[in-house]
Amino acid sequence: MKHYGFFRSSAAFRLRIALNLKGLAAEHVLVNFAKQEQLGDAYRNVNPQMRVPSLVLDDGTVLIQSLAIIEYLDERHPNLPLLPKDPKGRARVRGLANLIACDIHPLNNIAVLNYLRDELKADENARNVWYRHWVAQGFQAFEALLAGSSDTGKFCHGDSPGLADVCLVPQVFNAQRYECPLGGYPTLMRVFSACMALDAFDHAQPMKQPEAAFIR
Amino acid sequence: MKHYGFFRSSAAFRLRIALNLKGLAAEHVLVNFAKQEQLGDAYRNVNPQMRVPSLVLDDGTVLIQSLAIIEYLDERHPNLPLLPKDPKGRARVRGLANLIACDIHPLNNIAVLNYLRDELKADENARNVWYRHWVAQGFQAFEALLAGSSDTGKFCHGDSPGLADVCLVPQVFNAQRYECPLGGYPTLMRVFSACMALDAFDHAQPMKQPEAAFIR
Repeated sequence: MKHYGFFRSSAAFRLRIALNLKGLAAEHVLVNFAKQEQLGDAYRNVNPQMRVPSLVLDDGTVLIQSLAIIEYLDERHPNLPLLPKDPKGRARVRGLANLIACDIHPLNNIAVLNYLRDELKADENARNVWYRHWVAQGFQAFEALLAGSSDTGKFCHGDSPGLADVCLVPQVFNAQRYECPLGGYPTLMRVFSACMALDAFDHAQPMKQPEAAFIR
Repeated sequence: MKHYGFFRSSAAFRLRIALNLKGLAAEHVLVNFAKQEQLGDAYRNVNPQMRVPSLVLDDGTVLIQSLAIIEYLDERHPNLPLLPKDPKGRARVRGLANLIACDIHPLNNIAVLNYLRDELKADENARNVWYRHWVAQGFQAFEALLAGSSDTGKFCHGDSPGLADVCLVPQVFNAQRYECPLGGYPTLMRVFSACMALDAFDHAQPMKQPEAAFIR
């Protein structure tokens, strides 16, 4: 398998965590956003959406969209499952994952921040306020959902890491990078810390990727 | 089951389609966005994220996030499946669904448009340009993915409607409402027409919901 990614991409970070949790090896192919390689013809031929991650299987099949890829890996490699067995539990975990993947991250990715800067002439402060607004709104809900449920354990759902944790950790990294206040989310941050104690999460973090050494 | 929704919400529209395709009945509970009922205490007690849809099961379990809810329904009611059986096909359909649910719709929902208006002082024209930008970017990729794959059939994946179609149709409705040019997406629009020929999609459209008669 080949994993097209970039160290700073949250969505690629999710996939790195999932690969690590599953103990799966994938060749890392750097798509260098600092050189806008995601918009070039070479990468567009891999993924017409020109976003990362993409996972190219050994038979050449291209999978896109981090959550779809991770569900594929979970179906094909059901050891250490990332979703619980019962349908209600699965719905809870997917709901938490989608809260981040659909309602926080899309508003804060680089394409959107660039649009705010270039088209709407939003200055750095306005962009930071925007960023923190969507993180706060999403994390308040996420905290309430974790704190209010007996399904929450050491991790978002029970005592083993799953799809919701895989989405949560990169979002917290981004929030920290943009200096979002995180004091109001004790349950969320407790889960984050539990995740980061695991090699699968720790080794997937942006600054531990090879390209972090030479891309700012 | 109770389905908390609003006629104009794309995400609630997805769930209406899925319920119709499955032949499932759910009591409709109106969350009137025109009165900001989604932000009131009554609804926050149902769903701390204060978004629609929510599906409340007969045992009181609350499910949130449209895709998580629809996957739950598909697991519990596997007749007329919304995902193919093979993992690669499932990944393709989920990838298409997420392209819309993660990369188009979140940028164009009402909370974001209101933020652009109120906080960034973007005028109506600037908001429309924003809207059309993200639709165009997403639909170009979606069209390429449909047109470039032999898995595309009468619908997004094969000849029966599935999760990708459930996401596509509400997004096309929104695009039409915001007068996005749609001439460049022949395959996508062919699939849209095939969907709209089915009662399950047609009966779910916003203007056919009861509250459309009395909410602008």
